[in-house]
Amino acid sequence: MRVMGVDPGLTRCGLALIETAPGRSVTALDVDVVRTTADESLEHRLKAVHAVADEWMEIHAPDVVAIERVFAQNQVSTAMGTAQAAGVVALAAAYREIPVAFHTPSEVKAAITGSGRADKKQMTLMITRILGLQKPPSPADAADALALAVCHSWRAPMQGRVAAHDAHVARSRAGFEAKVASARESAAARRAGEGAAAADQERARAAARAMGRVKGVRW
Amino acid sequence: MRVMGVDPGLTRCGLALIETAPGRSVTALDVDVVRTTADESLEHRLKAVHAVADEWMEIHAPDVVAIERVFAQNQVSTAMGTAQAAGVVALAAAYREIPVAFHTPSEVKAAITGSGRADKKQMTLMITRILGLQKPPSPADAADALALAVCHSWRAPMQGRVAAHDAHVARSRAGFEAKVASARESAAARRAGEGAAAADQERARAAARAMGRVKGVRW
Repeated sequence: MRVMGVDPGLTRCGLALIETAPGRSVTALDVDVVRTTADESLEHRLKAVHAVADEWMEIHAPDVVAIERVFAQNQVSTAMGTAQAAGVVALAAAYREIPVAFHTPSEVKAAITGSGRADKKQMTLMITRILGLQKPPSPADAADALALAVCHSWRAPMQGRVAAHDAHVARSRAGFEAKVASARESAAARRAGEGAAAADQERARAAARAMGRVKGVRW
Repeated sequence: MRVMGVDPGLTRCGLALIETAPGRSVTALDVDVVRTTADESLEHRLKAVHAVADEWMEIHAPDVVAIERVFAQNQVSTAMGTAQAAGVVALAAAYREIPVAFHTPSEVKAAITGSGRADKKQMTLMITRILGLQKPPSPADAADALALAVCHSWRAPMQGRVAAHDAHVARSRAGFEAKVASARESAAARRAGEGAAAADQERARAAARAMGRVKGVRW
């Protein structure tokens, strides 16, 4: 599987491509950093990031694009631009129907170093070792993009199993709820024949049940 | 001039087109709201917003796209998505080489109602009156997009004058600095002929002048 990792940003946007093989084997294929300067307008900076990311998708045809999830809480001054850079890369993937995954910085750190609070130095050291590189990737954005891609390739199988489990639970729940609804309907239809007074009683009971359900009482 | 106004958002993104004429005359030509739901993935929501905005630019060929500037401080939970929606609209404009302008919510409110802290009701009332509409535009995102476009068409001439003034000041300053630099060079060349001791003295004097300049002393 080919995973494209993206460390989004306007000043520097890291792009990386790795090839994965069974058993956590990962190989770095390409890495690049798109740079734009603050004297360019926002829309032209976004265009530059989008154009290079889109070209990468055209050339490398990744199976998935893994992008760092940006939070508004971190570095407010640059967070919006970073989120917008992430957005235009995700957009390019959407138009090419390439799946997109987002991972938080702490997920990436935990996947690579075992600690969600690892520092830059530890991250660079580990990613260099994991990918068997001759020297540490530079600048940091290139290392981060590689880390994103490796994180995704290691997390994706587990996320797939979690998603499959969630889907199974949702299907079971939907089946159960349909059964309950149809039982309730036929009971209501039966009782409707027992006259208006009974119907009023049923409505009162239904309201009581609804209240009970809101409070978490079984009925 | 045709101005496209955009109230960015993922759940609802307001788009509006107005035609301006000399003397603050504005006419509403079109309005639309792009809706996406939270159960869609981020990249597909961005694609939906981008696709409609891009189609609008294709059909309406606006001269400028005015987008609300998003701040991370406001509504942190939705700010990132809103910024990303704004980003993909700006991207569409950049690819079509249509100029993009950003206006803050308080700039828009001030332009439309005279107060930067006007509420939704006042804004809707004023935009309905300004554009001579039969009924208030609905939902609020449509009204906001119209307000953005009107705000831009009224602010742009002033912004243009400010930019022209700034450019004039910058040119004057550059001219002055070039003159100073050339005078200094010819003086240094003259003094270079007066021997090494004099050159040393000159360096000391230059250092003193540089210090004086830093402190804002004229020389």
